Amino acid sequence: MMNFEIDKREFLRALGLVQSVAGRKTTLPILSHMLLEWEENSLYLTGTDLETGIREEIVAKIHQKGNASVSAKKLYEIVRELPEETIHIKKKDNQWITLQCGKSVFNLAGLDPEEFPSFPTYQEENFSTVSTRLIREMIEKTSFAASNEESRYHLNGILLAQIKQGGKETLRMVATDGHRLSLLDRENQKIRGIDEKGMIIPKKGVLEVKKIIGDRDGEEEMGIYFNTTHGFFKMGKSLTAIRLIDGEFPEYEQVIPKGNDQKIVMLKERIVSSLKRVSTMASERVEGVKFSIKKNSVEMSSTHQDFGDAQEEVEVVYEGIPLQVGFNARYLIEALNVIDTEEVLMELKDEGSPGILRPSSSTPGLSNQICIIMPMRL
Amino acid sequence: MMNFEIDKREFLRALGLVQSVAGRKTTLPILSHMLLEWEENSLYLTGTDLETGIREEIVAKIHQKGNASVSAKKLYEIVRELPEETIHIKKKDNQWITLQCGKSVFNLAGLDPEEFPSFPTYQEENFSTVSTRLIREMIEKTSFAASNEESRYHLNGILLAQIKQGGKETLRMVATDGHRLSLLDRENQKIRGIDEKGMIIPKKGVLEVKKIIGDRDGEEEMGIYFNTTHGFFKMGKSLTAIRLIDGEFPEYEQVIPKGNDQKIVMLKERIVSSLKRVSTMASERVEGVKFSIKKNSVEMSSTHQDFGDAQEEVEVVYEGIPLQVGFNARYLIEALNVIDTEEVLMELKDEGSPGILRPSSSTPGLSNQICIIMPMRL
Repeated sequence: MMNFEIDKREFLRALGLVQSVAGRKTTLPILSHMLLEWEENSLYLTGTDLETGIREEIVAKIHQKGNASVSAKKLYEIVRELPEETIHIKKKDNQWITLQCGKSVFNLAGLDPEEFPSFPTYQEENFSTVSTRLIREMIEKTSFAASNEESRYHLNGILLAQIKQGGKETLRMVATDGHRLSLLDRENQKIRGIDEKGMIIPKKGVLEVKKIIGDRDGEEEMGIYFNTTHGFFKMGKSLTAIRLIDGEFPEYEQVIPKGNDQKIVMLKERIVSSLKRVSTMASERVEGVKFSIKKNSVEMSSTHQDFGDAQEEVEVVYEGIPLQVGFNARYLIEALNVIDTEEVLMELKDEGSPGILRPSSSTPGLSNQICIIMPMRL
Repeated sequence: MMNFEIDKREFLRALGLVQSVAGRKTTLPILSHMLLEWEENSLYLTGTDLETGIREEIVAKIHQKGNASVSAKKLYEIVRELPEETIHIKKKDNQWITLQCGKSVFNLAGLDPEEFPSFPTYQEENFSTVSTRLIREMIEKTSFAASNEESRYHLNGILLAQIKQGGKETLRMVATDGHRLSLLDRENQKIRGIDEKGMIIPKKGVLEVKKIIGDRDGEEEMGIYFNTTHGFFKMGKSLTAIRLIDGEFPEYEQVIPKGNDQKIVMLKERIVSSLKRVSTMASERVEGVKFSIKKNSVEMSSTHQDFGDAQEEVEVVYEGIPLQVGFNARYLIEALNVIDTEEVLMELKDEGSPGILRPSSSTPGLSNQICIIMPMRL
């Protein structure tokens, strides 16, 4: 007698999302597992790396309530190869499960599901509703600037804060790795649990949320809620809980340079393609490109100790003083890629000061997107 | 004054092919370079890893004859980013070249082109003509069975031999890694330089030929010619020279089992998908799946020491004695994937003997394709 039946296609989709967090940490065997819980008309799948937890609910035909814990990777591999038929699952006495589909029978080793880490608790009624498109845009335009280095834990996160700007409730995301910073403001009604100081969400978890949004392009709204330890993101029947980073986010407002009054207006696509060319001759380690700026012209140049050198001149709109400043080409390209306008404004002060990139159409003073890049000596 | 002008798109295509062999060996700096030679109306690009050499000819507008040697990777990276315009190149006095395109100028470090390894010599008139489709098919259906282990140098090659079969000139390719063997015969007129004993071509070079054929799907014929040290493959204006392996190919005809009279007819797609499922529970190291064969049925099963077990029964046509035999699942799947017929014939003898796979429609005795797989104890 089987415990429940489930459609292969739906099962596989949910397994794909949940297995991506399972098995990242190998400190405990159970973390490579997935928790299956079935009752009433639903199967719940849960995976966690103790930082990000994902729970998916799928419609299932339940004959007898129960739960199990099996290898997430193995279950995913098996279901991926199954024909598009109904899958029958039975829990055995030794914690194992039997999975049967068509003429295939699998016995999967299990662990005691009681050992599986408990999912962070939350109150259903606390969720605020927000546009999935908005959240995805904010993640895409900031997360690239967060650090990937495990050792710089406080810079691995993305700040999400709720501020008032021009009297309007505004959601703000900020990320920085110490060499560059990306900040985006978007008008949005207040989300419960977030204040002006903000919460720091780990980059990995944020990218997981982006992946789940991408997978559910039909959903136009999602639920978000924060308590003091976790952020919760609900899309359809998918729930992601991310443990917040307990630390101080850098004082980013002090980093934003004031008095960068040398303003260059440039065509984004043209600058990006020139940077890609000139940076082929930048050294692999520092990736530096030198900007020599004069009236209505930017000359970019680079030199590689083994391979040679490159230079290219681009027309821009610039009326300021002649300036020379070096930047990391990749940081510039990544920042330019998240600015949507055809024209981009670059604001400089001198060769030793950070540069600002922003959409050229942004309202002065009330900037809703800025990228800051530290200069480098070349 | 520039030395020559060339179209970006054509240059990039040729660079892509040539740079794939350059830089594989890092023993000599010049091997990471590409040789450029320009005269009359052509630019010749040459790259080599001392085993496989590729030379491409492209139409160019030459102002002054010359040659140069520059980093293959760097030149490819630069040209890839250039706009679709004419590229102007000038050789400088210090072996460097200046490359100019649109508003970009690059100076690339060069080495003395005289140091570049010379391309193996060949006689234009010695080439035999053969169908590119035939050569690609033969490479695809045999090369997977050659060894990738550098230490087993004599098994890294693919044998190409010219035999007579039923009175007809036949081209034969054979590859084996000691655990499995794939042999394919195709009727074809005699190719100059190949005899019954055959030549051993390194797998890497053969795959390079396949790549160049793939890139030139329009070309229906290619030239092939062998001397005692090299094989030459000419497609359009692309020439590949491969240094042959100087060694003894295994006596493959002795490996082909005689008296495998337990014959199973099975549907290829069904067996492949069952194998993919059942092998999810095979151990990662040996990848073994057990076949339990009885009248009109094959049951496949596997056991993994950590994850559990799997079994599946498939209907086949079989009238022989009950048999149990173990095989490496991946070897079986790779062999089945190169058999084009819907039905496949598996020929077995007993649990300790190699199995044969072949298209079920092949003429008995005059087999034109066979795959042999060693059994394993499970």
